[in-house]
Amino acid sequence: MQIDELRQLIARQRPGWSLEQPFYTSPEVFEIERRTWLGDQWYVLGHVSEIPDPGSFMVRELLGESLIVVRGTDGEIRGFYNVCRHRGSRICERDGKASSLVCPYHAWSYRLDGSLRSAPAMAPEIDLKALNLRSAPVAEIGGVILGSLTADPQTLADARAEAQPMLEYHGIPNARIAARRSYPTAANWKLVMENFAECYHCYPSHPEYCSVMTHVEVFARKATPEAEGRWYAEQDRWFREDADQHSPAGTSQPDYSGRGRRVISRAPIGGGRKTESRNGEPVAPLMGQQSRFDGGFGAFGMNPFVALIMPNDHAILFQFLPTAAEHTDVIISWLVDGRAADSEVDVERMVWLWDVTTVQDKGIVELNAAGVRSRAYGPGPYSLLEPGSNGLVRSYLEGLSAAH
Amino acid sequence: MQIDELRQLIARQRPGWSLEQPFYTSPEVFEIERRTWLGDQWYVLGHVSEIPDPGSFMVRELLGESLIVVRGTDGEIRGFYNVCRHRGSRICERDGKASSLVCPYHAWSYRLDGSLRSAPAMAPEIDLKALNLRSAPVAEIGGVILGSLTADPQTLADARAEAQPMLEYHGIPNARIAARRSYPTAANWKLVMENFAECYHCYPSHPEYCSVMTHVEVFARKATPEAEGRWYAEQDRWFREDADQHSPAGTSQPDYSGRGRRVISRAPIGGGRKTESRNGEPVAPLMGQQSRFDGGFGAFGMNPFVALIMPNDHAILFQFLPTAAEHTDVIISWLVDGRAADSEVDVERMVWLWDVTTVQDKGIVELNAAGVRSRAYGPGPYSLLEPGSNGLVRSYLEGLSAAH
Amino acid sequence: MQIDELRQLIARQRPGWSLEQPFYTSPEVFEIERRTWLGDQWYVLGHVSEIPDPGSFMVRELLGESLIVVRGTDGEIRGFYNVCRHRGSRICERDGKASSLVCPYHAWSYRLDGSLRSAPAMAPEIDLKALNLRSAPVAEIGGVILGSLTADPQTLADARAEAQPMLEYHGIPNARIAARRSYPTAANWKLVMENFAECYHCYPSHPEYCSVMTHVEVFARKATPEAEGRWYAEQDRWFREDADQHSPAGTSQPDYSGRGRRVISRAPIGGGRKTESRNGEPVAPLMGQQSRFDGGFGAFGMNPFVALIMPNDHAILFQFLPTAAEHTDVIISWLVDGRAADSEVDVERMVWLWDVTTVQDKGIVELNAAGVRSRAYGPGPYSLLEPGSNGLVRSYLEGLSAAH
Repeated sequence: MQIDELRQLIARQRPGWSLEQPFYTSPEVFEIERRTWLGDQWYVLGHVSEIPDPGSFMVRELLGESLIVVRGTDGEIRGFYNVCRHRGSRICERDGKASSLVCPYHAWSYRLDGSLRSAPAMAPEIDLKALNLRSAPVAEIGGVILGSLTADPQTLADARAEAQPMLEYHGIPNARIAARRSYPTAANWKLVMENFAECYHCYPSHPEYCSVMTHVEVFARKATPEAEGRWYAEQDRWFREDADQHSPAGTSQPDYSGRGRRVISRAPIGGGRKTESRNGEPVAPLMGQQSRFDGGFGAFGMNPFVALIMPNDHAILFQFLPTAAEHTDVIISWLVDGRAADSEVDVERMVWLWDVTTVQDKGIVELNAAGVRSRAYGPGPYSLLEPGSNGLVRSYLEGLSAAH
Repeated sequence: MQIDELRQLIARQRPGWSLEQPFYTSPEVFEIERRTWLGDQWYVLGHVSEIPDPGSFMVRELLGESLIVVRGTDGEIRGFYNVCRHRGSRICERDGKASSLVCPYHAWSYRLDGSLRSAPAMAPEIDLKALNLRSAPVAEIGGVILGSLTADPQTLADARAEAQPMLEYHGIPNARIAARRSYPTAANWKLVMENFAECYHCYPSHPEYCSVMTHVEVFARKATPEAEGRWYAEQDRWFREDADQHSPAGTSQPDYSGRGRRVISRAPIGGGRKTESRNGEPVAPLMGQQSRFDGGFGAFGMNPFVALIMPNDHAILFQFLPTAAEHTDVIISWLVDGRAADSEVDVERMVWLWDVTTVQDKGIVELNAAGVRSRAYGPGPYSLLEPGSNGLVRSYLEGLSAAH
Repeated sequence: MQIDELRQLIARQRPGWSLEQPFYTSPEVFEIERRTWLGDQWYVLGHVSEIPDPGSFMVRELLGESLIVVRGTDGEIRGFYNVCRHRGSRICERDGKASSLVCPYHAWSYRLDGSLRSAPAMAPEIDLKALNLRSAPVAEIGGVILGSLTADPQTLADARAEAQPMLEYHGIPNARIAARRSYPTAANWKLVMENFAECYHCYPSHPEYCSVMTHVEVFARKATPEAEGRWYAEQDRWFREDADQHSPAGTSQPDYSGRGRRVISRAPIGGGRKTESRNGEPVAPLMGQQSRFDGGFGAFGMNPFVALIMPNDHAILFQFLPTAAEHTDVIISWLVDGRAADSEVDVERMVWLWDVTTVQDKGIVELNAAGVRSRAYGPGPYSLLEPGSNGLVRSYLEGLSAAH
């Protein structure tokens, strides 16, 4: 696959239809993406509670690279490639805490800011100052740690300014991780993200999700102007009468179109539910600045790979990590208030909705991946209920074109 | 591997010698084969008893494709690629029965003839009539379901006309499957088929087979004009005196040369055996139009991939399915009369001969595959007892040359 | 990867720095190496005690090839590719003893000198004399069996002449294998060999080895002229006063520089230890011509892949076998005197040092391999304590350049 061939593929794409096969299956396309557009994106790497103290570090895989994310003596969070500058060994195998990062092979040691501290028995002509760890872009927004291979950290400034109040309102910076589960999915990342970006599949695939989230009926099944009108009226009423009036974005409407890349919003779950549990009853103490259960949920999204959903008493932090042409790691962390005792958190009831839903999504996305490998596969038309998937695909194609 | 290189390889082949290494090992050669000659072949997909009713369907892998084989409301059997025309999901995961084929992802549904029945929430400008399931060639000969990716169904007409009486005589259309076993073999399909096409290896490799089948001694060990003469005389005597005179091809002689692509014949097992069991005694009730145990067996072959062996009381249906450059699935189904009760069938005694023989073949073919990967491998001469293998290789080379 | 690209890579190498990434990761570079420089090297295949009698044979993998090493009726050891000249089957699956080598597929049989003995039912025009087994270079030095794919056996003459007395002194020709363990390592062979060629990593990685081998402190940590001077003085004293004066190379000094390709030497373990056990006490009877425990150890090395370490009572025979771009098999055989009874050998105490050390090396080399795959990897400077690794890399680059 040469870049010219890729341009031809991009040019051939029919607007409103799904992608040509190679975008979903080709290792060569993935390799180009990895070097360009995917490398420029931000991904969720974790939560600040995972590296609470100076010297705390975590080791995370991103696009085939191993990164060390470490909190320095100055409290700052920094990212480094997990590669010793001597002969290339990985330095850290797992999360930990240390006053310096010491390579296990020949004991070269690095300060928490990545600078080389000591390298024994080196010839005097070697310039040790040129052998600091190579850094990788890492940043924090409201307690969420983001990382990238080649993004410009400035691209985060607007998102941070806009999202910070909502994340603080929901208590994300002071949260702790109560559960984490992995859903390794044998499918190209675009199939995973197209799935996450639409609810057209919710009725066939997600009975539990449909039973909890009121908006599904409006946006996944009926989608008539009348149904939407009733929903927006009910939502307005909720914002006026039921919603916590201290919410920083209490009057904004959520973006179900999927067209907007950045989502910072609140909406009601509906049906009288206080949270996203099976019976609607709380599963943990209220988080952040919330003073009562108003039955709403906040949402934060920045690009296809960063997603956070925040009911009153917990938060669901998604990681979508492309790892190969036909493999994507999906990891969910459930956050609760940092001061909540284990006895106050009902983990099984908390994880229920998104665990069952993500297991289902893994299944249907893998069937999708199996199908698009066929010689009989060709792009098909998105329905009126898949604007998110279509928008995601369009912005990807634009980005990929521009990346070259 | 460009096609020109492949042509050079073909031109270099020495008649009467085994193939050059890339034909047995190269993923690029396999990919070319899959797009051309292999795609044009017919393969056994199963038996009509697996989809008895309107709406019955089965899901089968063929050359890396998943096919749905479904019986329509009109009783006809049709084949479709298992790929939804919306976003490409697999539609069926396993065999079943339904009034329409519904994609599990977004509930697009198709009629049993492959036409799109419903696709919710599509924009009015989308032409839904252009979104029927893509069909694949599927056909039936005497109860055996054959499938292909690109064969012309007309190519079956002659074989069907010729084979139908023999298959009906042996009761294949009304049979049921009493056992099925798989022998996944880590070897190129040509090594599997060359093995199946000769009995030169029977003495070193198959003591059980040699103990049952009389013809082995003639065609695998001695191969002298005298031995062959005695065998043909004994065979003639069997046809005249012992064989069921109602047999449709009772006087034809079997083709052990392997040169003829189509085999429709009967021959005696020999040694007084009634069937291909260890002691020669029956393992199930008589099948089809047979009125007594005459100790013969019918054979049906059409190309290297279609093989059926029919003693008086059961039938052995082979599937040879190339799946990768160095992998072939071999599956055997044992058929018995459709009305035979389980208590009338001795499954273990029935499967004994071909199970033990195919396990042995898997072993030696995998050793063969390991050897041909070596830099020391080069084509070797076929013996006088391997005309079937040699003929198979020649007709493959001719077909592959013509395919471009 | 074309050869021109490889030449550019070689030209770009900075002296004294580790290799560019493709040398450690690229399957294409490995394939070129396999066809050229690696194919020309000698490797340890085993020990003469494994094929003691005429007709004894062993089956060994070398660079993706299966070789049969067989002792003929004349007592000579010969190597053959394990590929039948008929249709390419592997002939031998495992070690054994036979009067001829018979292919399990069609029973072609070969004499112990590789000549074809019988091939049934071949057409008379086939020249059977042209169908002997293809031979592979195999040779013995003092009981150690070496093999290669394309080496010139003459290249062994000097090494054999020089090493034979030392190996006989240590009783290697008459030894037996008391234990063998495998350490399959997911890393390019050069990372394995660079690791084996330096002791810079001994302090961080090998506490057990450091506790036993006195020279480590001199050559792995301090490396000052004073420390080295004291060590050489002590070593001289040992050679004069303590060492067995019958040793054939009793006055030679070991080569810790790693620059010399051939190592045939003796040195003291030090610390009053009689052998390389945890407490320094013997683990087996004295070997060869040694009359007492003098606490020394012999060493034999010929190229990066041939290594033998010989304390007074046992010997450690290393096999380093490159199998893929990122995989190397490391196998250690522990030898003892051929007449030693099992009850005289304490296997666990004998294997302790090199087992624990090689498990550690496998771990750090695999971390090294993971690191060099990163886009952040680039060559780093060897320290003053890694002349062996640097020398190995240089001689490899010279050899690879010359090989084309």
